[in-house]
Amino acid sequence: MFQDSSAETIETSMQEAWQAFLIYRKLPLKQRAGFMRTIAKEIEKLGHGLIRVAMHETNLPEARLRNERARTIFQLNSYAEFCESGQWMDIRIDTAILDKTPPKPDIRKTMVPLGPVVVFGASNFPFAYSTAGGDTACAFAAGCPVIVKAHPAHAQTSEMVASAIHKAAADSYMPKGIFTHVHGAAVWVGEALVKHPLTKAVGFTGSFTGGKQLFDWGNQRAEPIPVFAEMGSVNPVFLLPGKIKSDAVSIAKQYAASITLGVGQFCTNPGIIVGIDNEDLHIFMEALSAEIKIITPAPMLHAGIYKNYVEKRATALSQNEVTEIAVAEQQASFNEGTATIAATSAGNFISNHLLQQEVFGPYSIVVRCADMNEMIQVADQIEGQLTCTLMATEMDVEQNSRLVESLQNKCGRFILNGVPTGVEVCLSMQHGGPFPATTDSRFTSVGGDGIRRFTRPLSYQNWPDALLPDELRNDNPLQLWRTVNNELTKDAII
Amino acid sequence: MFQDSSAETIETSMQEAWQAFLIYRKLPLKQRAGFMRTIAKEIEKLGHGLIRVAMHETNLPEARLRNERARTIFQLNSYAEFCESGQWMDIRIDTAILDKTPPKPDIRKTMVPLGPVVVFGASNFPFAYSTAGGDTACAFAAGCPVIVKAHPAHAQTSEMVASAIHKAAADSYMPKGIFTHVHGAAVWVGEALVKHPLTKAVGFTGSFTGGKQLFDWGNQRAEPIPVFAEMGSVNPVFLLPGKIKSDAVSIAKQYAASITLGVGQFCTNPGIIVGIDNEDLHIFMEALSAEIKIITPAPMLHAGIYKNYVEKRATALSQNEVTEIAVAEQQASFNEGTATIAATSAGNFISNHLLQQEVFGPYSIVVRCADMNEMIQVADQIEGQLTCTLMATEMDVEQNSRLVESLQNKCGRFILNGVPTGVEVCLSMQHGGPFPATTDSRFTSVGGDGIRRFTRPLSYQNWPDALLPDELRNDNPLQLWRTVNNELTKDAII
Repeated sequence: MFQDSSAETIETSMQEAWQAFLIYRKLPLKQRAGFMRTIAKEIEKLGHGLIRVAMHETNLPEARLRNERARTIFQLNSYAEFCESGQWMDIRIDTAILDKTPPKPDIRKTMVPLGPVVVFGASNFPFAYSTAGGDTACAFAAGCPVIVKAHPAHAQTSEMVASAIHKAAADSYMPKGIFTHVHGAAVWVGEALVKHPLTKAVGFTGSFTGGKQLFDWGNQRAEPIPVFAEMGSVNPVFLLPGKIKSDAVSIAKQYAASITLGVGQFCTNPGIIVGIDNEDLHIFMEALSAEIKIITPAPMLHAGIYKNYVEKRATALSQNEVTEIAVAEQQASFNEGTATIAATSAGNFISNHLLQQEVFGPYSIVVRCADMNEMIQVADQIEGQLTCTLMATEMDVEQNSRLVESLQNKCGRFILNGVPTGVEVCLSMQHGGPFPATTDSRFTSVGGDGIRRFTRPLSYQNWPDALLPDELRNDNPLQLWRTVNNELTKDAII
Repeated sequence: MFQDSSAETIETSMQEAWQAFLIYRKLPLKQRAGFMRTIAKEIEKLGHGLIRVAMHETNLPEARLRNERARTIFQLNSYAEFCESGQWMDIRIDTAILDKTPPKPDIRKTMVPLGPVVVFGASNFPFAYSTAGGDTACAFAAGCPVIVKAHPAHAQTSEMVASAIHKAAADSYMPKGIFTHVHGAAVWVGEALVKHPLTKAVGFTGSFTGGKQLFDWGNQRAEPIPVFAEMGSVNPVFLLPGKIKSDAVSIAKQYAASITLGVGQFCTNPGIIVGIDNEDLHIFMEALSAEIKIITPAPMLHAGIYKNYVEKRATALSQNEVTEIAVAEQQASFNEGTATIAATSAGNFISNHLLQQEVFGPYSIVVRCADMNEMIQVADQIEGQLTCTLMATEMDVEQNSRLVESLQNKCGRFILNGVPTGVEVCLSMQHGGPFPATTDSRFTSVGGDGIRRFTRPLSYQNWPDALLPDELRNDNPLQLWRTVNNELTKDAII
């Protein structure tokens, strides 16, 4: 166990982070990118020791952790590349028109970092969404120092990754305070970090309760700050008649795997499956049940998550008109999540809001609709989601535009004939969505555009070329695509 | 006087706005743009009648109102053009890599509108930041219906502009509910609009008190929504030694005009002028005083703003160690703002936070610093601003990088050798800034990027070409610049 950081340590860290900000924000993009790549290398160097500690702390299997570490390294390198490309600065230049009345001045807009960013490690991704995860990488790319609050469930793993970042920072001659690692099992630590006047933004991945609390703290400050909290989702899946008719069994197999992947501990886990109550759905449920019954129970991340799963599953199953359809048959030990499928009617689902709440773990509820009209009613009733999925033929999609439109309004990522689990790290990825999936649907926490959470535009008006930052200079030394007088170009300005 | 809209009217309007949203969001960009251009034409058609009513309601002179109407028409046309260009959709496409393990799906990201947007008209811009102003234009471009709450101080002007929008909506076959005009002198109307579950975003330009209240309401909702409030600013100006030495008198003249432009009723009005206490500053202040003394008092927008100006000016002048330097000599009538320059020491300015507060009107305070160190202390102390201005030679800038960096951190637009008044409507404009200038420094309320306030990304995963929206199709029918596999291109995807 690590002791919570003291109020004095937090104060000193924030002061140092601010001083680091004043230096780091001026460093060339190449240097920021170099630092991020060095972090990736240092994490790699931690070797099997890191995996062993993470296995012990998180109960996650070795293969999964190795994959997640590889992904984290890939992320750092890919955000470094994107940082260096400078495209995220969205350069806009309008040159002067001096013979206008009044004369139009030269204005050039770039992006500048917000300031120190506090990142909260996620329990379910000890590497990829934690200490050196996506939020940290985005903040470094943006030009912001980072203060990470380690997730108490994998504090030692976090310490090791933090040591890699510190090593990389020293080797890259980064200013003191560029990165701070803080422990805090107690609530006041998170509150002190979010409310510190020198904190300028917050990144979080985790529960609704946790994320909403940080969001409220951020807004209650004398100077409110942006808090991007990704708070999970139930990721509803809609089975359309044409598709399910032809494919019920293979869809069931695909979904049994997705629901139970990583003991269901993903924010993109499909928690609601909506279908028309007919023979095809019956076949689907039979096949899904058969798969679920033979799932081997596996340990969950930690006792808190296990307890939560047991309780929330029990609450969901105890609701009126909710039937248990299938439960993994092998006896689960303490801490192991038992895969479970429930079912209910659309009417009951619509009238009981509790059934929409996330049961974090290998659980999903099938919602049986009388017809497409009822399916649309279910869709209209759904809260904001990270993802929505349609299992549908092209004809299904064409014939059900009203449903399609309803779901477009609800999610950040709209999947056709796939599973929501598996989040690619690429520029086209939107990992965000309307509240309560996140606190601000206009941003993403995965992919290069995640940098935008931590930057703001700054326009220079009437500055001579020699005094402008590189990205705004006439000769375009960084060779960026820039919008000059409303035209996208790489050309120099003459 | 107009009666406040009733709770029933608001409820009906929001329901209609939502229904309109479901239709309007699907319309091609060309059609949205056409609607906006028709609004511009209809406003033009209102002719002198509109100007006459606005003159009566706002006390603004005819020439100013004609200019502002021209600007509003320009804005509508320029946002229409930007809307049609589709560049704001920031298309990102990553094509599938099927031989990867696991296979990488095809993902394509576009922008979708948030939903109905509530816009609060500003008192100081009856056209450009009101009923058919920048927020309304940005929301329409984004694909959002708009509900405008008329500013009570120019409700009749607002009615007339609203009638033009309604006419344009009918002529453009827009869905019912695309635009709603609401009156509400009472606070509860604004609260009901912001807190209505079908409201998905808010745009506001006005006072800190008003904007912060809307922001808090937006965040206190069960489903928080983004509230972009531009809450004004004191727009500090820093006079650097080299520049002031050579140019004191002409700078003074330039600033006397900027401080008193439009009776000082601009959010970019320069309210603080910071200089080194030496002979050059003395010459500047003498010249500024001479100019201010001969300014003819002019009526302010309405009695509330006048009362506020009189009170805030009196409070500022009554602070310890604040001296009145110059006051317009001609006796002001009731409702007329008297141009006033005060002065104080840097030490006093730093220790008394009240002196940083906006005195909305033709008022500015000169802050005398002992040396550059003290000027940096003043800069460090300054709150978030829409603009900061340096009056400086290139050598001044090069020799005072610490000051320059401090100011970069404080503002959305950084001006060199100019005045902050005058906000160009162009893509490179950042009209925003760190709190308390706005509620979210990552957005702008002027220029094409203002559309971003009302949109969010949506990724399509694994959709066949035929079912994708036009902007994401392989053959790129809209001929957009798109980032395809990390390369910006207009090419079709093969």
